Amino acid sequence: MNGAQALIRTLVDAGVDVCFANPGTSEMHFVAALDDVPEMRGVLTLFEGVATGAADGWARMTGRPAATLLHLGPGMGNGLANLHNARRGRAPMLNVVGDHARSHKRLDAPLESDIDAVAGTFSTWVRRSLSPADVAADAADAVAAVATGGIATLILPADVSWEEGAAVADPRPGRPLPRVAPSVVDDVAAVVRADEPVVLLLGGDVMGEEGQLAAAQVAAGTGVRLMVETFPARSVRGAGLPDLHRLPYPPEMAMAALAGTRHLVLAGATAPVHFFGYPGVPGHPVPEDCTVHVLSAPGEDGTAALRALADVVAPDAKPEVAEFERPELPTGRLTPRTMAAVVGALLPEDAIVVDEALTSGAGLTEMTSAGPRHDWLALTGGAIGDGLPMALGAAVACPDRPVIGIQADGSAMYTISALWSYAREQADITTIICDNGSYKILEHELSRVGAANDGERARTLLDLGGPRLDFVGIAQGMGVPASRAATAEELADQLRQALAEPGPHLIVATLR
Amino acid sequence: MNGAQALIRTLVDAGVDVCFANPGTSEMHFVAALDDVPEMRGVLTLFEGVATGAADGWARMTGRPAATLLHLGPGMGNGLANLHNARRGRAPMLNVVGDHARSHKRLDAPLESDIDAVAGTFSTWVRRSLSPADVAADAADAVAAVATGGIATLILPADVSWEEGAAVADPRPGRPLPRVAPSVVDDVAAVVRADEPVVLLLGGDVMGEEGQLAAAQVAAGTGVRLMVETFPARSVRGAGLPDLHRLPYPPEMAMAALAGTRHLVLAGATAPVHFFGYPGVPGHPVPEDCTVHVLSAPGEDGTAALRALADVVAPDAKPEVAEFERPELPTGRLTPRTMAAVVGALLPEDAIVVDEALTSGAGLTEMTSAGPRHDWLALTGGAIGDGLPMALGAAVACPDRPVIGIQADGSAMYTISALWSYAREQADITTIICDNGSYKILEHELSRVGAANDGERARTLLDLGGPRLDFVGIAQGMGVPASRAATAEELADQLRQALAEPGPHLIVATLR
Repeated sequence: MNGAQALIRTLVDAGVDVCFANPGTSEMHFVAALDDVPEMRGVLTLFEGVATGAADGWARMTGRPAATLLHLGPGMGNGLANLHNARRGRAPMLNVVGDHARSHKRLDAPLESDIDAVAGTFSTWVRRSLSPADVAADAADAVAAVATGGIATLILPADVSWEEGAAVADPRPGRPLPRVAPSVVDDVAAVVRADEPVVLLLGGDVMGEEGQLAAAQVAAGTGVRLMVETFPARSVRGAGLPDLHRLPYPPEMAMAALAGTRHLVLAGATAPVHFFGYPGVPGHPVPEDCTVHVLSAPGEDGTAALRALADVVAPDAKPEVAEFERPELPTGRLTPRTMAAVVGALLPEDAIVVDEALTSGAGLTEMTSAGPRHDWLALTGGAIGDGLPMALGAAVACPDRPVIGIQADGSAMYTISALWSYAREQADITTIICDNGSYKILEHELSRVGAANDGERARTLLDLGGPRLDFVGIAQGMGVPASRAATAEELADQLRQALAEPGPHLIVATLR
Repeated sequence: MNGAQALIRTLVDAGVDVCFANPGTSEMHFVAALDDVPEMRGVLTLFEGVATGAADGWARMTGRPAATLLHLGPGMGNGLANLHNARRGRAPMLNVVGDHARSHKRLDAPLESDIDAVAGTFSTWVRRSLSPADVAADAADAVAAVATGGIATLILPADVSWEEGAAVADPRPGRPLPRVAPSVVDDVAAVVRADEPVVLLLGGDVMGEEGQLAAAQVAAGTGVRLMVETFPARSVRGAGLPDLHRLPYPPEMAMAALAGTRHLVLAGATAPVHFFGYPGVPGHPVPEDCTVHVLSAPGEDGTAALRALADVVAPDAKPEVAEFERPELPTGRLTPRTMAAVVGALLPEDAIVVDEALTSGAGLTEMTSAGPRHDWLALTGGAIGDGLPMALGAAVACPDRPVIGIQADGSAMYTISALWSYAREQADITTIICDNGSYKILEHELSRVGAANDGERARTLLDLGGPRLDFVGIAQGMGVPASRAATAEELADQLRQALAEPGPHLIVATLR
């Protein structure tokens, strides 16, 4: 058994049975070994950023690490932005990065670069397999290292793949999710019982049903306000769950949302900071006289902590949850808001919504909050270009659930070749491209940073209109049926049809 | 004057007057300052890999550093693969990487990552500007640091851009190109005069007209064989120049090409190694009993050294150069060879050919070697996806010269959004997509690595045919007129028409 065969078999035994791949020469034995381990599903992508973003989406939906297969340092570099997003969202992931054969490493071949240094910037675990005898154990260690989140990067020299002498390794136990100490729960209980304004900020692992209901029970029994971090990796939403509002993205709105708060209690979330610093604006929205308390840090069992908190402070309270309600189907011209209403009106049961709508997403969460139960995946690390790939990963993870990607136009172009993988896998994904013909978010930011004399040339650099991108042609060119909607009625018709048919569809929503 | 204004003015004064940009919030003051320094041309790209590849192409054609504007660590990550290629080709380049404001840096905002560590892997010079008073001097240092090749990365905190108190800095003298010592020339002269088989391997800076003619004079006077490194960054070619053959890419062919050589003399090139290690194959093609001599290392004045060598060993020899000759226009079905013949038959005067044809490029150099004078840009670092962006940079650098990009299908998809920038800039680029519907090079490699049991699932992972990419639709969707050619006649007609019209065109060559 060669190293590649032992590696793949070990991964499958440890529950890693999907690999989003963009292989090159140094990974050819890994590719060849796919035929020896049919339980491993290889999903081809045309660009590494699609592979890493898809692995992120897959991991968010399964809670298990997906594997990626990347080609040396440059291939890993192409995947870096979505590895950044995955790191920020604490998705479990395993990158297998092929490298030169050990004997070739010293020769400084053209593709030689410092893989280890780059991998160290996003990985919680990095190792280079040094022999076929080690590689399976390395792989088992890697999977265990990220059992509760984090990115493992296993650097795999080509000859470690191709040489014989390897053997499969058994799965290793991962790090257990640490529980939150009862004394911490008691401390927070004292805070929420005191007669001062408290915000309980939720995020990360507590955004499942149980965590949200426990938080809502705390709120019902004590009057604390609930809020959600701005971009939670995965949230379950819909009727029967509390209608939770997110901490807004713009600094002024985030500060207004927390104004008057004396105690900010974190459950799964980290203390909020603004995405960017701005002239004359504080770096975070927490009021000066507000004390920040940690009920559960990311990587701890926050859901159990919320449950325990609810039992202490509100044992008999009944969480307030949303009654089923959908917006009416709107008519007339398409705006971000009417687009959101169409999505809300037609959202199918058990959907997965992948949200990279950015400025076009206003109203989306509001219009869907009381609809059918669904999961919502957000852009965790601010590196645009994760939306299209995440939807691929979510669809591979959950083939029986409809995936709806709501995607800004500018950011779609970073990883546009994801569409080809949609078609290849016949993934059940409906993509709505929010076509406003500009980097709208940057136009906002250009004003916000106080760049007063933003003239013609600056504006031009943020304008996607010359030429206007025709996403219908681009999608069809990659094998995805596509159409264009200029009114709410057209969007509704096309969305209904796309959801009724299996496989991928793309709708360009021309927004005014 | 704020930091951004001083920075851009300083760059322009130092000869850096084009910036390939994909900005984000942290770069908004840089964008705003473009209106204050109209001599700086900002070229918008939709993806950072396009920006870095275009800067590479621009730098190769001008010999001066182009600037890129990248958005924090993830934006730099997206540009990493083509920065790798630029590093391998020793292109001068300056990356301006925006970062969080200094006060925001400590807050671990979502886009925070270790920019410095990643930049260190490809840069010859890295600095973080610490104040508006420093930024212009930092920029002047950066440009000077890469005057003779190499990548400078200037990390620019947002508030260093937006704060007042900056002043323009004067250009600094760069490092001069070191001359090769006369004793080294004499040593090599003794080697080439001895009656043993000698190969003079050319590359890097000696691939201009003067270096090639000097090398050919040496060959004419001494009988040494001339050869060129496998992927020279830029070569001038055509009638009136020696017809130089490249060291082949496949290891077996490279070893055969150097078999029997007792002395390998390097001029601008490094000692050759195979791209990858293979089971049972040596890591490089240099015979065991061959001595390697360095006439000029990369970064030394190799052209002057060759001139000096020619004066010593062959003062009266006449270099053998190619007489003007073109292939006949072929007819019938399109193969890599007939495609190459069409290109050779129609190659216009003074063209720039950007070659990322990979396996489809067989015959291309042969069919063009004695045609009209042209420049040839090759993929230097093996990270595919540099071709489309390099053509953009070459066209921006040389607006009066036709650019022809010959582009493999699989690798085109890594940076496909370059086409949109072609249309936006109305760049005079004719792109020929070599459509063979597979990662053909990997099919070769799958066999070459000795992966014997390559079965159905392995083959499937290298097949781009499901679905077949329609590059005509994709190109049109980005604003580039496109057509498809299935025969040599159709390709000739379409290429003739594309070359006759200004602006970008794309032709899909369906290869059998």
